Amino acid sequence: LFNTYAAEAPGMTVKSRNLPVPAAASEQLQTSIASTGAAFFALGDQRLETSEDWEAFLAVRNSGQTIPLEPLAQMSDVTIEREQIAGINVYRVIPNEIAPEHTDHLFLHVHGGGYVLGGGDASVTEAVTIASASGIPAISIDYRMPPDYPFPTAVEDTVAVYKEVLKTHEANGIALGGTSAGGGLAFAAILQLKDQDIPLPGALYAGTPWADLSNTSDTLSTNAGVDRVLGSYEGFLEAAALLYANGRDLKDPLLSPLYGDFGGFPPTILFSGTRDLLLSDTVRSHRKLRAASVTADLHVFEGMSHAGYLVAGRAPEAQVMFAELSRFLKAHLH
Amino acid sequence: LFNTYAAEAPGMTVKSRNLPVPAAASEQLQTSIASTGAAFFALGDQRLETSEDWEAFLAVRNSGQTIPLEPLAQMSDVTIEREQIAGINVYRVIPNEIAPEHTDHLFLHVHGGGYVLGGGDASVTEAVTIASASGIPAISIDYRMPPDYPFPTAVEDTVAVYKEVLKTHEANGIALGGTSAGGGLAFAAILQLKDQDIPLPGALYAGTPWADLSNTSDTLSTNAGVDRVLGSYEGFLEAAALLYANGRDLKDPLLSPLYGDFGGFPPTILFSGTRDLLLSDTVRSHRKLRAASVTADLHVFEGMSHAGYLVAGRAPEAQVMFAELSRFLKAHLH
Repeated sequence: LFNTYAAEAPGMTVKSRNLPVPAAASEQLQTSIASTGAAFFALGDQRLETSEDWEAFLAVRNSGQTIPLEPLAQMSDVTIEREQIAGINVYRVIPNEIAPEHTDHLFLHVHGGGYVLGGGDASVTEAVTIASASGIPAISIDYRMPPDYPFPTAVEDTVAVYKEVLKTHEANGIALGGTSAGGGLAFAAILQLKDQDIPLPGALYAGTPWADLSNTSDTLSTNAGVDRVLGSYEGFLEAAALLYANGRDLKDPLLSPLYGDFGGFPPTILFSGTRDLLLSDTVRSHRKLRAASVTADLHVFEGMSHAGYLVAGRAPEAQVMFAELSRFLKAHLH
Repeated sequence: LFNTYAAEAPGMTVKSRNLPVPAAASEQLQTSIASTGAAFFALGDQRLETSEDWEAFLAVRNSGQTIPLEPLAQMSDVTIEREQIAGINVYRVIPNEIAPEHTDHLFLHVHGGGYVLGGGDASVTEAVTIASASGIPAISIDYRMPPDYPFPTAVEDTVAVYKEVLKTHEANGIALGGTSAGGGLAFAAILQLKDQDIPLPGALYAGTPWADLSNTSDTLSTNAGVDRVLGSYEGFLEAAALLYANGRDLKDPLLSPLYGDFGGFPPTILFSGTRDLLLSDTVRSHRKLRAASVTADLHVFEGMSHAGYLVAGRAPEAQVMFAELSRFLKAHLH
């Protein structure tokens, strides 16, 4: 009766309407929303089917998205070094002033970008913000991606780096997480670590996690076209999910962790916004953690689209969000 | 190139679309959503301007909404007594089995209904659910309402009952709260108590609180027509706000607590749903509490409209919600 993939009666029709810019969002977030002409990830008429389609798309999207490392480091009072850990490219980010409580801690960061974008130097931006805001040393994993490295390489790379840093850090002094695909990937890595009986990190950060790739979440419908960053599932998200999954069932828990077992997960902090296409992925993850008796704190920002705290990184909402994350890390890392 | 949905600066237009029933909601919540033909509070062509309009509307809406007290009490393993406290009609709800930790505690309940509906015997239903789920004695305040008693009577009645029960209970053993207008009214009462230097309750419950009557919140736009209970701001909510406010500025903090000072508020638990017209009121309240360094826990349910945990009271989501509330009361009442 309630077919997951098809939208038929007993659904309902919502009329076309004008959405004002959110009046209760900060001025900076309002400006960011008003100035986004069309959703950044919306594809319009573009198709992503052949490998040539993908190459052209990735080339355009990856160009000009990266802040050069040197000015980024200076601006943020950190140092950034390229390294390899377990044969995987990573970026090590050390704050010029490490917070006394974080001397022995580590934030292990996995970037977003739908498992196809956001790699290379771009992967480090969010890790720099976290390291700088929290005074915590960070490592950002430049995990390998499709077309050349589809699922499960991203999960394997993340687990491999984690196992290596475990040799020099206590598990409960490590935080793991990221935004969007990074949040989903962090969940998937935890499922894998549980399976391998490896000590789990002390805290998880799930910023609007892409926790279900199978077009099941309700806000994929209700916030379609409302979200200024992602646009809609049809287009980029769907194409990226299929490219990454490489033929695997999209409800495989390592692809869509919401179909896995969250029992024993580390304390987790989750962020989203009222306009976020992945608000449902976020609140479903929160509920699943709570149902498993895991400490889990949910924060939802007024008028914010997907990952709006990165898109409008200087808005007060972004500062508040990274301050909440910082407080959470200080409370839960040991 | 990437223009999926037409966007006009500074607002934007969202195209008409079909919304499937939320696939990841429980079967019971799905059924409840699919079977709600039109939003319960939507007015259609009805106008609420004259006092005759209101009388006719209230007469229809108040009829048949109430479960008789006797079967309600039996069903829920509680006793219900009508009383007066400080001259205000209240209902005293005593669970047949009081939880040992709540022997000396009290849940002071204020009902919802846009400050115009939900009074009389109907006011006690949510209090019964809370008393029964948490094993905590409750008093539900049947505060006086418009047309005869507009603002600030509801706030005054709530404060008067609170002051009276303070004579027999420790403040930090009392929880205060309710759903919708009840959540907003609880916030307003706290502002008033702060102003009068009266000891504050130990915990607050804000179920999708109507915390801003002034049509400022973003989900009033994004979830208009998506919410199956409230429909849209235009119509019932707007008319109720104006009737209740009785000429007062809708941004008066005692009408719209989001414009007040939340410093020193008690620990607060907040609930909403992804389809809730008042999701923004809820998350804005949560952020304002957090900004004031108040302990505040946010819970958002997949696919749920305004107060869906009361509308679909037997759905697993409702059970989970009242279990979260129960856990919060046990943690924060002393």
